[in-house]
Amino acid sequence: MNTGELVELGQQLRVDSVRAADAAGSGHPTSSMSAADLAAVLFARHFRYDFERPDHPGNDRFVLSKGHASPLMYALFKAVGAIDDEELLTFRKNGSRLEGHPTPRRLPWVETATGSLGQGLPVGVGIALAGKRLDHADYRIWVLCGDSELAEGSVWEAAEQAAYENLDNLTLIVDVNRLGQRGPTRHGHDLDAYARRFQAFGWHTVEVDGHDVDAVDRAYGEALSTRGQPSAIIARTLKGKGVEAVQDREGLHGKPLPDAEEAIAELGGRRDLRIRGERPSAAAAPPAGHTGRLELPRWDKGEEVATRDAFGEALAALGAARDDVVALDGEVGDSTRAEAFAKAHPERYFECYIAEQQMVATAVGMASRGRLPYAATFAAFLTRAHDFIRMASVSGSGINLVGSHAGVAIGQDGPSQMGLEDLAMMRSVHGSTVLYPCDANQTARLVAAMAGLDGIRYLRTSRGVGPVIYGPDEEFPVGGSKVLRSSGRDRLTLVAAGVTVPEALAAAEALEGEGIAVRVIDLYSVKPVDRETLRVAGEETGCLVTVEDHHPEGGLGDAVAEAFADGRPVPRLVRLGVRDTPGSASPDEQLSAAGIDAESIAAAGRLLVAEAIVP
Amino acid sequence: MNTGELVELGQQLRVDSVRAADAAGSGHPTSSMSAADLAAVLFARHFRYDFERPDHPGNDRFVLSKGHASPLMYALFKAVGAIDDEELLTFRKNGSRLEGHPTPRRLPWVETATGSLGQGLPVGVGIALAGKRLDHADYRIWVLCGDSELAEGSVWEAAEQAAYENLDNLTLIVDVNRLGQRGPTRHGHDLDAYARRFQAFGWHTVEVDGHDVDAVDRAYGEALSTRGQPSAIIARTLKGKGVEAVQDREGLHGKPLPDAEEAIAELGGRRDLRIRGERPSAAAAPPAGHTGRLELPRWDKGEEVATRDAFGEALAALGAARDDVVALDGEVGDSTRAEAFAKAHPERYFECYIAEQQMVATAVGMASRGRLPYAATFAAFLTRAHDFIRMASVSGSGINLVGSHAGVAIGQDGPSQMGLEDLAMMRSVHGSTVLYPCDANQTARLVAAMAGLDGIRYLRTSRGVGPVIYGPDEEFPVGGSKVLRSSGRDRLTLVAAGVTVPEALAAAEALEGEGIAVRVIDLYSVKPVDRETLRVAGEETGCLVTVEDHHPEGGLGDAVAEAFADGRPVPRLVRLGVRDTPGSASPDEQLSAAGIDAESIAAAGRLLVAEAIVP
Repeated sequence: MNTGELVELGQQLRVDSVRAADAAGSGHPTSSMSAADLAAVLFARHFRYDFERPDHPGNDRFVLSKGHASPLMYALFKAVGAIDDEELLTFRKNGSRLEGHPTPRRLPWVETATGSLGQGLPVGVGIALAGKRLDHADYRIWVLCGDSELAEGSVWEAAEQAAYENLDNLTLIVDVNRLGQRGPTRHGHDLDAYARRFQAFGWHTVEVDGHDVDAVDRAYGEALSTRGQPSAIIARTLKGKGVEAVQDREGLHGKPLPDAEEAIAELGGRRDLRIRGERPSAAAAPPAGHTGRLELPRWDKGEEVATRDAFGEALAALGAARDDVVALDGEVGDSTRAEAFAKAHPERYFECYIAEQQMVATAVGMASRGRLPYAATFAAFLTRAHDFIRMASVSGSGINLVGSHAGVAIGQDGPSQMGLEDLAMMRSVHGSTVLYPCDANQTARLVAAMAGLDGIRYLRTSRGVGPVIYGPDEEFPVGGSKVLRSSGRDRLTLVAAGVTVPEALAAAEALEGEGIAVRVIDLYSVKPVDRETLRVAGEETGCLVTVEDHHPEGGLGDAVAEAFADGRPVPRLVRLGVRDTPGSASPDEQLSAAGIDAESIAAAGRLLVAEAIVP
Repeated sequence: MNTGELVELGQQLRVDSVRAADAAGSGHPTSSMSAADLAAVLFARHFRYDFERPDHPGNDRFVLSKGHASPLMYALFKAVGAIDDEELLTFRKNGSRLEGHPTPRRLPWVETATGSLGQGLPVGVGIALAGKRLDHADYRIWVLCGDSELAEGSVWEAAEQAAYENLDNLTLIVDVNRLGQRGPTRHGHDLDAYARRFQAFGWHTVEVDGHDVDAVDRAYGEALSTRGQPSAIIARTLKGKGVEAVQDREGLHGKPLPDAEEAIAELGGRRDLRIRGERPSAAAAPPAGHTGRLELPRWDKGEEVATRDAFGEALAALGAARDDVVALDGEVGDSTRAEAFAKAHPERYFECYIAEQQMVATAVGMASRGRLPYAATFAAFLTRAHDFIRMASVSGSGINLVGSHAGVAIGQDGPSQMGLEDLAMMRSVHGSTVLYPCDANQTARLVAAMAGLDGIRYLRTSRGVGPVIYGPDEEFPVGGSKVLRSSGRDRLTLVAAGVTVPEALAAAEALEGEGIAVRVIDLYSVKPVDRETLRVAGEETGCLVTVEDHHPEGGLGDAVAEAFADGRPVPRLVRLGVRDTPGSASPDEQLSAAGIDAESIAAAGRLLVAEAIVP
């Protein structure tokens, strides 16, 4: 396309954005209009993509970080022939693939769900890192973001990683339209302010008039020819560009144009230009996955092993069996034991430093390139990435998260380092799997099982050593549980997971000595939960005590209660958990203070069997 | 103190750090030793603080962002006479105030809990903003952070806000010891790399040898004399400085010294220097709070009002009655309706732009200066600040968080904008209060009630209008609920909150027409939950259906189940919630698709009463 055609294409994208939002009665046309010329030049001149083969390994990748500008994206999809005009006008309607914010669950040409700002660049960095260090391919990643979202710290975690990793296959296009949702941004049209920041972080920058298609074209060319560092195109634009009634005006964010017909006329009417984009470059397909026999580590019953150690060894073994496994670290690999993988497979180990949002985003990006990522940090610090985990679920991304140092059992370090909310966070994510092993063999099996699941999978590990309870050939289906003790005389069931399993076993032993037969269930699969085994235990024993190293809300206790929320009779229930903010103390002192040690469990069980109210 | 004494003081702080960690058998002495000279000069020469009056309004504020260097902080507290040597050696022991990471819940001289990295500067910015724009006092804020933690995006959210707000009362001291937990940082001893970044964000920077006490003294002086911008002292240091066996060596993070006695000898032995610090400047006490009669907005039954609108108006009214109320926005004040407060009290409204971590940190900082902050954004985006909320709880901070646009009821915008995990997140925070009003008058009352609570208080609001159900004089105690329908014949209880309350009422009406009398409970207080009312309903009706616009885990359904976890008989339970990731659709279509509208509730109730299993 020549200059004139590019200008026309930009206007077409504006018109179609206005039309889509008008048909929907909602949406963000003005945010689409500011970036229309930037997008037109990119798709017509530089973006190499086969829209009939979205899984082509050589495809460039486009991430619309300002996901609310979805009308622009859908107008582009129409211009390349991926959707038709009829579908364009289904925007935001019930059942349409064209959601308010784009998601790959619905649209194969979307790399990652956006709409929570400041997430596009982080995920783009993950993809670019895969291109550079895993695929060794020359596809490029283009991220279009808004200026407002540069206030998100996650953008600077990404900027840091991108420059440090010399990601010259990554170009960020910043649509500086100077207006956020409720008013002007901090820096308005001061392009230098943004350029200074990116330069300081090690990026190449180009400042440009985002409505001058030739200048934009040259800027992209400059980015493409820059070696050794990522590029940021800082483009001055006008929100609502091209329609006087809305151009560069406040108070119009997220609203269809007041008079769509008039606006379309002002933009020169409907057009039907077609983009015949560049073809993708040749590239090898990502690795197939299974390449060898999985030889998980094995431990003998009675050994004392920390589940975090078992995780590290199992992950290294999994990495030997599967060439698609990658590990991501938040600068705590020596604590999570992910370093075992680093030693075995350094080329597939990525140090993300202390930047948990970026660690999860890198996982999402790599998963979109066919990898099987395991990202590990302290369970407590995964809360830093909660919004990224949530959005990964919206994307339908398949990633594995591992949280170590769970609960008060870590001891002296105190509450800042204790994961006491992680089960609640991970359970509430749609489609997630939540696993909490109690011993080394179980951990190893679950590390392997996670690989075969969909969605967000979470494994919770513990810092201290604990007894190996299961033999190395025991199997642990996801959604299952293990009945560790039972008899026909059981009057009580204890439901535990992780560090509370040995405590529950000791409590059961003590109660047995008092003549109270007790069933013990190891609920290693917190989500999905083993409703059937819990139901049977409820019916046969009449009462259950749950015990967890986690705050009482959202964790094991809630998971067990959920199992009984099917309208059938419910057994009597008591939940033990960490009901206060701990201080520093030894692990044993912590379990005792929290009331989740064997003695406390036995006391609660005794009261429950006596049909007394448990305080 | 003269140069020689400052050097000696630095050595004393090292010796005491080594001794404390040695007594504990754990802790981070090497991370303390790198910053000892920086701390010595600060406390001896510049820090103005009355340790007998930690609440002195003119006190400077010191935030140890690298909270793992707590031995250094406790050694300082000993040097100023705030604690004695005996207490120093209780470090990390059960019951000691000297936890592994410092927290103000235990120690009055600590401003905010740290230990999750990258949080000290953000909170320091909040305090500095209070000093500048609320207290108009000349106290200074000093934040000591590590180099590793500069990888956290939250640091750059803070850097942006600090420079934009011209916080020249804030000095950041970066202890560049080049070693993180598992190895070297990205930038090693490249001080320029950090200086460039801070300069680009608008900071004044000083690079200095962090072990040259005179140079450090001059650097602090330069920071103090810099006007109009915050200062960052970028200090080159050595981890484990002063003890050959550990100095500048990898693999020694978070470990006591191998030979404490030898190390102490190498450091020149024990000393007992006393710091006689500078006195605080004169300053007025923060505002007392109540200054006038609270005139909450009032609505008539039957009006159609969105709870987010009621929140905005109620907050403005609360701000008129109390001069300690401040409002913080994440650049969505037009959506959350916090803008109503901005219009009424612009001098107490703080735009934090799209930086939710910084928004919550600003709230924590202002709370520590006696303010009553209300921070509002979309419920979905509060997940971005999860780790800050968690740490605010560890601090014992009293802050109000408001999440708008809850649930699928927002309609077309789609899942990225829908709060579907927020109740789970907020319930799991220790000591939190979780409120979810269904109408305007209830919202206004709860906005006022939040002001009187401790800890983290969360209010969930809705985007769309709903009927005013309660009169303006109705009261809504926290921990209570409202029985909206009941009779002696009730065979079923529907438990709802927020947007599902009108749906539950309509379902009850429909079931009544079929001869099934139904009780309806408005569970506006999700935490603490009204156990008694739920218990009575369970006993009298035998079965409960909970219905919530939230994923089924961690929210209302779990809260109701928790109410029955006291060992007494449990009614039959069914929970309705959002069991899939929604797309775009109208609010009504969304409620129907999620199975939480009146029709779905009635269907579930019908099955439950028939004692059938509810799928």
